[in-house]
Amino acid sequence: MGGVAMSAAAKPVSAMASDLARARRGGAFGTRERAAAKRVIADVRRRGDPAVLRVVRAFDRKGARSDDLLADRAMLRRAARTAPRDVRASLDLAYRRVYAFHEGQRPRATHERDGAGVVRITPTPLHRVGALVPRGATAYPSTALMTGIPAQVAGVRELVVASPMSADGEIDPALAYALTLVDADALYRAGGAAAVAALAYGTKLLAPVDKIVGPGNAYAAAAKWLVSADVGIDALQGPSELVVVASRDADASALALDLLAQAEHGSGAFAALVSSDGTLLRDVDVALAEHRERALRARILLYHAPNVGAAAHAANMAAPEHVLLAGRGAAALSEKIHRAGAVFIGTRSAVAFGDYVAGTNHCLPTGGTARWSSALRVEDFVRWTSRVELRGDLHRLAKAGATVARHERMRYHAESMEARG
Amino acid sequence: MGGVAMSAAAKPVSAMASDLARARRGGAFGTRERAAAKRVIADVRRRGDPAVLRVVRAFDRKGARSDDLLADRAMLRRAARTAPRDVRASLDLAYRRVYAFHEGQRPRATHERDGAGVVRITPTPLHRVGALVPRGATAYPSTALMTGIPAQVAGVRELVVASPMSADGEIDPALAYALTLVDADALYRAGGAAAVAALAYGTKLLAPVDKIVGPGNAYAAAAKWLVSADVGIDALQGPSELVVVASRDADASALALDLLAQAEHGSGAFAALVSSDGTLLRDVDVALAEHRERALRARILLYHAPNVGAAAHAANMAAPEHVLLAGRGAAALSEKIHRAGAVFIGTRSAVAFGDYVAGTNHCLPTGGTARWSSALRVEDFVRWTSRVELRGDLHRLAKAGATVARHERMRYHAESMEARG
Repeated sequence: MGGVAMSAAAKPVSAMASDLARARRGGAFGTRERAAAKRVIADVRRRGDPAVLRVVRAFDRKGARSDDLLADRAMLRRAARTAPRDVRASLDLAYRRVYAFHEGQRPRATHERDGAGVVRITPTPLHRVGALVPRGATAYPSTALMTGIPAQVAGVRELVVASPMSADGEIDPALAYALTLVDADALYRAGGAAAVAALAYGTKLLAPVDKIVGPGNAYAAAAKWLVSADVGIDALQGPSELVVVASRDADASALALDLLAQAEHGSGAFAALVSSDGTLLRDVDVALAEHRERALRARILLYHAPNVGAAAHAANMAAPEHVLLAGRGAAALSEKIHRAGAVFIGTRSAVAFGDYVAGTNHCLPTGGTARWSSALRVEDFVRWTSRVELRGDLHRLAKAGATVARHERMRYHAESMEARG
Repeated sequence: MGGVAMSAAAKPVSAMASDLARARRGGAFGTRERAAAKRVIADVRRRGDPAVLRVVRAFDRKGARSDDLLADRAMLRRAARTAPRDVRASLDLAYRRVYAFHEGQRPRATHERDGAGVVRITPTPLHRVGALVPRGATAYPSTALMTGIPAQVAGVRELVVASPMSADGEIDPALAYALTLVDADALYRAGGAAAVAALAYGTKLLAPVDKIVGPGNAYAAAAKWLVSADVGIDALQGPSELVVVASRDADASALALDLLAQAEHGSGAFAALVSSDGTLLRDVDVALAEHRERALRARILLYHAPNVGAAAHAANMAAPEHVLLAGRGAAALSEKIHRAGAVFIGTRSAVAFGDYVAGTNHCLPTGGTARWSSALRVEDFVRWTSRVELRGDLHRLAKAGATVARHERMRYHAESMEARG
């Protein structure tokens, strides 16, 4: 590594690809989750809510009753009132910023007009959408905003949110408050494959939806994939990923917090720092040690790169969920990073801001799927209709169209155009 | 039916939903196709091109050799030169119109800026895309345009097209010409599940792609679904569908041609006419009989509706691939139809124009998936990256973000924001 002293904790950056490949080996789900999800889906399709209730009792709340499964608007409003004032104010601020950013994404019809007529493509909001809001140690109101706001901006008519029941059966007041902000019609209190199946195929309590969006565990991801021939889905989200690219002037103690925050996402999370600066790597390592979070520290990987360009290249090749470019040298490369779900530019742009209040969406592609998929957007909540209205001189069109159609041995295609030419 | 004399051939419109449900029962693919596709994918992943060659020999060309599998740019240019002049001129016209319409769809970055900084979302073309171009009685150059043009407008770097080999081993000159127009890098001469597997996972001849788009048979659809956790796919296209809604002044002989053209798509195709006008239904029935196409006629269904509004409603509920609104009364309802893949407005707007030269894309959602999915668009060939660049006063953001993060028991998320506040 060119005579630069390496931190004992740092591996060469060339090792990152294989570490990442190992972390991603299972994809968004494995064969075990797929098999389990398949069984749950079959049971929910056959028996409906009672099948969901069985899963809820097994994993979420032992004493759950059928009446607990669905919370309507009135119940959500009631629960929302008990949310602490500072939490409500904070969710208000997050809501405003996320809404404003997504408003800019509102899709626009396009058209092309000439002597033959006009062709257009026009967006319509999806009619009914189901959003998954997972539960960790507690409820995640932020994910209710991130899935609900783009639906609201798009103009989706009916939004139902599915989120696992708490062990005590109470509806989290902050979650309820977030659901009132996004104007959700109902909360179905189940998660994982059972929730996906209920949303996809409907139950007595729940009408089927047109599309299912939002993150979940590996069982939910497997279930989304399994139902995706019958209902729309967004991307398959797997464990969270962060690659920090840092140049010398980055703030080591702040980066340590970003890496710990990433590790906080759980055992599948990938948290890596790449730098060409041995001093910075050592400083981050020291800062991490000071937090005395052994379990979290064990999930954090440090890599040494020959230069900041090589570090940025490695981040791009990884196509991770998040990239943070910390320090001026790293931030200067931001235009080169285009294979990540989200890029955070400059030391002050903590990744966590993107999870809550920056305005961008925190439902992001993971597992390398950023090569083809994107953050959740307003676009995910509309469908487009092509509209063809021809009334002018169609002679040239009919002649050209019929020539190609006859080449394709589509006789009546040709004749139907010629009849209008 | 309000005393209106019904055509003997017409059923009440209430029967359409169940007829359509029966036609769609298998979805884009059934369990048989799924099992076969699974085997082919496993074989192609294990053995690569030789596994593809085995399928090509079994279904497309007995004597196919490994060297025949891939055609490069030079081979395509050579084959294109032998396309008849009128076919080339017709493909040129189609290319110009489809390109112009798709150019209007080019995606634009959006951003939101305030005292805290700027958040953006920016599009990047996909790097490498595989497009499926099926083969019927002959090659379909029109589908090469429909899949290739939006890729080209998006700025996709590498486009490889997969299309089944002909029985004589020759490359169809018109297909080759269309491929040179869309600037395809190569033609992989296989179809169905084998082509999908080769594109998804790569072979010796073919690097893997980031996304697979375009229509195919039920085996290709099953394969696309099976690989969709590992690579991007567009919608799962099933058999083609048309619902014509016609009012009294529609041109019966032209409509008969549209219905025959739809039936020409093969045994799975759904071709329906709904009208409240008994005379028109009878006239279309007579016009159909005059064509003496028994097999095609058998696939065409006529329905009688109490009024044109009910006919349009039935079309909307069906969410079919194509709707044609023929006659002034039907055309007036065009804004109410928003659950179809494409709407053709007015008697002169033959559906076949949309297959070739109108400008809109002919890769459309089928099987009711128009409830959530759309025509192939430029959007399908880009990915979006969120970009967060905060550098101003972050105090309020950090406070609000940390409050929500602590509620979600994400301690380091909170601290990482506070460190920047």
